[in-house]
Amino acid sequence: MSPFRASPGVTGEWGHFGFTVEDGVATVTLDRPEKLNALTFDVYADLRDLVAELPHRGDAKVLVLRGTGRGFCSGGDVEEIIGELQSMAAAELLEFTRMTGAVVRALRECPMPVIAAVNGVAAGAGSVLALAADFRLLAEEASFSFLFTKVGLAGADMGSAYLLPRLVGLGRATELLILGERVDAARAEQLGLGTVVDDLPAAAESLARRLADGPALAYSMTKVLLTREQDLDLASSIELEAISQALLMKSTDHAEFYAAWSAGRPPVWRGR
Amino acid sequence: MSPFRASPGVTGEWGHFGFTVEDGVATVTLDRPEKLNALTFDVYADLRDLVAELPHRGDAKVLVLRGTGRGFCSGGDVEEIIGELQSMAAAELLEFTRMTGAVVRALRECPMPVIAAVNGVAAGAGSVLALAADFRLLAEEASFSFLFTKVGLAGADMGSAYLLPRLVGLGRATELLILGERVDAARAEQLGLGTVVDDLPAAAESLARRLADGPALAYSMTKVLLTREQDLDLASSIELEAISQALLMKSTDHAEFYAAWSAGRPPVWRGR
Amino acid sequence: MSPFRASPGVTGEWGHFGFTVEDGVATVTLDRPEKLNALTFDVYADLRDLVAELPHRGDAKVLVLRGTGRGFCSGGDVEEIIGELQSMAAAELLEFTRMTGAVVRALRECPMPVIAAVNGVAAGAGSVLALAADFRLLAEEASFSFLFTKVGLAGADMGSAYLLPRLVGLGRATELLILGERVDAARAEQLGLGTVVDDLPAAAESLARRLADGPALAYSMTKVLLTREQDLDLASSIELEAISQALLMKSTDHAEFYAAWSAGRPPVWRGR
Repeated sequence: MSPFRASPGVTGEWGHFGFTVEDGVATVTLDRPEKLNALTFDVYADLRDLVAELPHRGDAKVLVLRGTGRGFCSGGDVEEIIGELQSMAAAELLEFTRMTGAVVRALRECPMPVIAAVNGVAAGAGSVLALAADFRLLAEEASFSFLFTKVGLAGADMGSAYLLPRLVGLGRATELLILGERVDAARAEQLGLGTVVDDLPAAAESLARRLADGPALAYSMTKVLLTREQDLDLASSIELEAISQALLMKSTDHAEFYAAWSAGRPPVWRGR
Repeated sequence: MSPFRASPGVTGEWGHFGFTVEDGVATVTLDRPEKLNALTFDVYADLRDLVAELPHRGDAKVLVLRGTGRGFCSGGDVEEIIGELQSMAAAELLEFTRMTGAVVRALRECPMPVIAAVNGVAAGAGSVLALAADFRLLAEEASFSFLFTKVGLAGADMGSAYLLPRLVGLGRATELLILGERVDAARAEQLGLGTVVDDLPAAAESLARRLADGPALAYSMTKVLLTREQDLDLASSIELEAISQALLMKSTDHAEFYAAWSAGRPPVWRGR
Repeated sequence: MSPFRASPGVTGEWGHFGFTVEDGVATVTLDRPEKLNALTFDVYADLRDLVAELPHRGDAKVLVLRGTGRGFCSGGDVEEIIGELQSMAAAELLEFTRMTGAVVRALRECPMPVIAAVNGVAAGAGSVLALAADFRLLAEEASFSFLFTKVGLAGADMGSAYLLPRLVGLGRATELLILGERVDAARAEQLGLGTVVDDLPAAAESLARRLADGPALAYSMTKVLLTREQDLDLASSIELEAISQALLMKSTDHAEFYAAWSAGRPPVWRGR
């Protein structure tokens, strides 16, 4: 969105997942189907940097996260990540956990809507990637497993103990994060964790298209303020909304709405 | 509630909606039924000042917001507000958005319960007025539409991105505020947005009566602390409740409860 | 959990409720069944000090709160507490309300999971004790009544106006705390307040056993971070989780997970 690029320019190639931008829709496709798209150190590092860079490219208005094959993302690979962690020093472990958290922070702070198209298992870090999205569309086969305690780690990982209570309430989040049991798609929808859809690829495509073709600055500001106001008091939130909305009243799209309404025609959104 | 009036005194006439106070129940009736009670600059200004003044009148213990005709409130009038905004300078726009936000802040900080009797459409700013209430009673025809993005503005307006996630969770709030789709009464109840009732006028009257006739200081303190503790940490909240409750243990109504209980008769609440 | 005991040592006898620790499971049994386990000043004081001391004993990994007879806990005894409050000075009332709040704060800050086994009525202070637990298991006869306003006091008591909105959302919490109506077990489960179980003693025993025999340090950290992150912003929460998780990656249990997984055997948790 920002046209202000510094020296680094735009990365040409992302080596550890599929990445495309088409007509405003950026798509990340986790692509290790034989491992249910388990994460490796390289995938994490690429995700961290891609999501941070994405708003500066100028060609994307919405980001879709999806997985190839039967799973969405089964979390950190037991051999390639957990195995390696066993011999790491404290400082290296902290570099790793900060990298994983940086992915979630970047997704929440990315000034465009993020859609997780959850086609199957979202487990461990994979379930937290889905939590960090703004929309979670769920295939009937989708499931969440916050299984961290099952590997002897805290259910609080990459921001899960911040995000999940704000999505489903503190009681249910406590149960899910401490016990780590599987949540199927129907139960997830009931808890407010997502929306079950019949044809996931079509539904994700359709929602992404709508967000990319619509008043994208208005969508962007809505997401940014929802994120910020989780951490703001009432009076500051109202002030922030007053200032932001005054800015949007000077936007091209708001003027277009009024012109279109006056002329009795549908608006043509520019996203600015 | 406060007997401490300064020089301004109490406003005699509110020109832009119906206003009555009867036996402790203040009622604001939005009254432009031909426009589904769309808001104008004047309605906003009157709401802002009325709600700020209300606790100082001394004659109201509960506030009811309702609408005449088929709708509750369809939000800012497209001609009389959105049309006018097109030619305003930034400073004027900010005056406007701050005024609208001040209404919500006043409703949340008003030290008495607020009931929104949602008889029909609550759209745009009308939906946020309903969010700012403590109780939302819904007719079967009631609906919410957070339709800001449909006019090219942010779904974060008048505090909606603060209030809605705290009512229905961050995921559902994101969906509702970004997409702006209509939520019918049954779905609203399911989400925790309100309670569907058979006979809305009777239900609103009955709840208002109960709140006005009951231990109003206890109700007031409950609302005030619920509001404040959204922005407070656990330890400070517990301390605030300890201090407030000690004060209430010195109240007329708490003594009356014990006297009535000891005598085996129902308490006669004084609201102080 | 902490082996670091100071001069006070461990209290030998708790006089005002049943208390046992067996194989990692601490159990508090409220034991005035003829009064539905109504609280007295002594019970509060013992609860405050026991929960504060519990983590330092070193023999408990989980705490179960339960009641004898038909009720869980009917709150402050009308005769023995409310009656006494009538003649107290402000400073004494504040000592009392701070004591009750200290119980809830201790339960939330206690670094081990707390299970409330709600066998029947949880009313007033009894309902807030249940809110302060991490898990609420509900018999079919269980119910919650936040009935404070019915005795002329604020529905905000012992942290209820902080905890309940974070469990069930602000709208429903407002309704429950202002009106003080009874919530039966099925409705409580629907609201996210707990889980209804068939055989409550067996279910509580089974969950407590699982938590005591599992990776208890991971469970403890999950609970502690869930508690803290209710009051932290996103970026600080992610940083806190990164640091905590790096520590847990150095834990005995995480190494045991990987060793067991590599050997194809189930892990033997040590809780450290």
